[in-house]
Amino acid sequence: MGGDFAPKNEILGAKLAYNAFGNKGVSIYLYGDADKIQQIANQNNVDTSIFTIVNTTDTIKMSDDPTEILKTKKNSPLYKGISDLANHQIDAFVSAGNTGATLTTSTVLLGRIPGVSRPTIASFFPTTKSRPTLLIDVGATIDHKSRFLYEFALMGSIYYSIAYKIEKPSIALLNIGEEDSKGTDAIKEAYSMLKKSDLNFIGNVEGRDILHGTVDVVVCDGYVGNVILKFAESFGSMLKTKLKQIASTSFINKIKVGLSVPALKGLFKELDYQEYGGVPVLGVNGISIVGHGKSSPIAIMNMIKKAVELREYQLISKIESIIKQNTLKN
Amino acid sequence: MGGDFAPKNEILGAKLAYNAFGNKGVSIYLYGDADKIQQIANQNNVDTSIFTIVNTTDTIKMSDDPTEILKTKKNSPLYKGISDLANHQIDAFVSAGNTGATLTTSTVLLGRIPGVSRPTIASFFPTTKSRPTLLIDVGATIDHKSRFLYEFALMGSIYYSIAYKIEKPSIALLNIGEEDSKGTDAIKEAYSMLKKSDLNFIGNVEGRDILHGTVDVVVCDGYVGNVILKFAESFGSMLKTKLKQIASTSFINKIKVGLSVPALKGLFKELDYQEYGGVPVLGVNGISIVGHGKSSPIAIMNMIKKAVELREYQLISKIESIIKQNTLKN
Repeated sequence: MGGDFAPKNEILGAKLAYNAFGNKGVSIYLYGDADKIQQIANQNNVDTSIFTIVNTTDTIKMSDDPTEILKTKKNSPLYKGISDLANHQIDAFVSAGNTGATLTTSTVLLGRIPGVSRPTIASFFPTTKSRPTLLIDVGATIDHKSRFLYEFALMGSIYYSIAYKIEKPSIALLNIGEEDSKGTDAIKEAYSMLKKSDLNFIGNVEGRDILHGTVDVVVCDGYVGNVILKFAESFGSMLKTKLKQIASTSFINKIKVGLSVPALKGLFKELDYQEYGGVPVLGVNGISIVGHGKSSPIAIMNMIKKAVELREYQLISKIESIIKQNTLKN
Repeated sequence: MGGDFAPKNEILGAKLAYNAFGNKGVSIYLYGDADKIQQIANQNNVDTSIFTIVNTTDTIKMSDDPTEILKTKKNSPLYKGISDLANHQIDAFVSAGNTGATLTTSTVLLGRIPGVSRPTIASFFPTTKSRPTLLIDVGATIDHKSRFLYEFALMGSIYYSIAYKIEKPSIALLNIGEEDSKGTDAIKEAYSMLKKSDLNFIGNVEGRDILHGTVDVVVCDGYVGNVILKFAESFGSMLKTKLKQIASTSFINKIKVGLSVPALKGLFKELDYQEYGGVPVLGVNGISIVGHGKSSPIAIMNMIKKAVELREYQLISKIESIIKQNTLKN
């Protein structure tokens, strides 16, 4: 019930997922107002017998305070779904709702993987290379501490290795220069910790390296990561506005811009972060995925696909093991 | 002698500046290897009698350590020029060389304006509105402290008011949400300090607001500012690469992209930060401007134009006065 177009896009996305891999032993549960779900499903010719519907009565708004939800909204889709995940009733949870609420509820109800100080959320960025760059953290933890940066690197490496089937993704710290003498004390400390780790750590990179695809995983605190994510998201809309402005200057420019639009469409799509189909809350003891509020049915399907894949490739036990191995080194 | 195309672009830019406002009482001094300057001027048919050439013998490289320059390269164009500025032999200094070296040399030789803790460098970003956004700081001070953020806001307000003739530019703190409860302790403290200031402070903005032009001046620490600046600079080159990739997929796409290029040129130009013609080191006791290493002759001319303007509108005394007024409040 969480997304901007809920429950319609969620139902349509769940149906796409059922069609794509329902025959591979994947069962889909829908948490929410059962009457509403049935009504919207009927309107869109979706047969709900392919799902298990779990009725909930509380509703979470985008403006709700995450810690309040834990106290007052125990019969919401978010609280009930993540409780069921914690109790092994389900294997993964997916939401296009309130990101902060999903992060907090996942952290409290699922608990942290042993050795993880702070759960984190990462985001993929398109690059000029064949693979995207993962930026970690993008807003879960704004404290700028070496230990957190170090753990983000460990968790980001595992997540990237599963998402892109790369054994040792390359990892770097986001900095204002490449030399190891650059940056804040926290970055310099994290640098020396990562040098001693098992990771394929290549050192520091700068802001430009994210889109250049210099490295697979770029590590930063959640303040800078969140600012970059939102800055990048605004680029697509800026580009569209500027093109409209150019088109309005003359008839010739209108034709030129009009002709270029189909060619640019692929580019705009890549700049549209929801296409990546959600991101897991990394570091919690369960697969909990949060997606863009504006998620389309395809984005919802991609989130479910990601959930299935992260379970198949054992995200949780792999994070537990890399943290354990590397805690001994630092 | 500092830019990537020095001294040619510097000489051609200085000539453009002389033609544009040499008759308004502006005299241009060229600091550098006098023989080399004369030789390049001859090759480009520039009559050097319109300039005063100040011969220097030391050369600064992009890789030089800023603090070493102060000890060992006192006969460099940078050291000599900023010394002459400190001694009131000249009224402003302009360079397309090593940014860190210009910042450090300006800070040490000119000294800080009373009440300024840290000098800062700001950068303009294009927006979908009629005026650009000023991001301050973009790399001079990576320490994330409320007092520094507060001073950046005061200096940014003065600089924007001179650059765009706005009496009270709107000011915001860069944060991960708009609520005053969001962000680090330093941001929350700076928020309450700015509330009490004389500035047109509108609160917090997010990463997306920089290009949306929500506010005139966006305040952040130099770590996040530098990362965003370099991230944004890489967008233009990413766009070009992606368009080339699209063009290579089919003959039709090649034609479409080819037709769109002239329309996109204006956009690429706006994304090209050197077009803004350099940025002053704010908070030092003198007008010292640093520009992009790849500055074209037009960019050099724009830097000289900016120097003339900042002197005419009394940048230094205005910063001194706003800092003095607002120090009493916080």
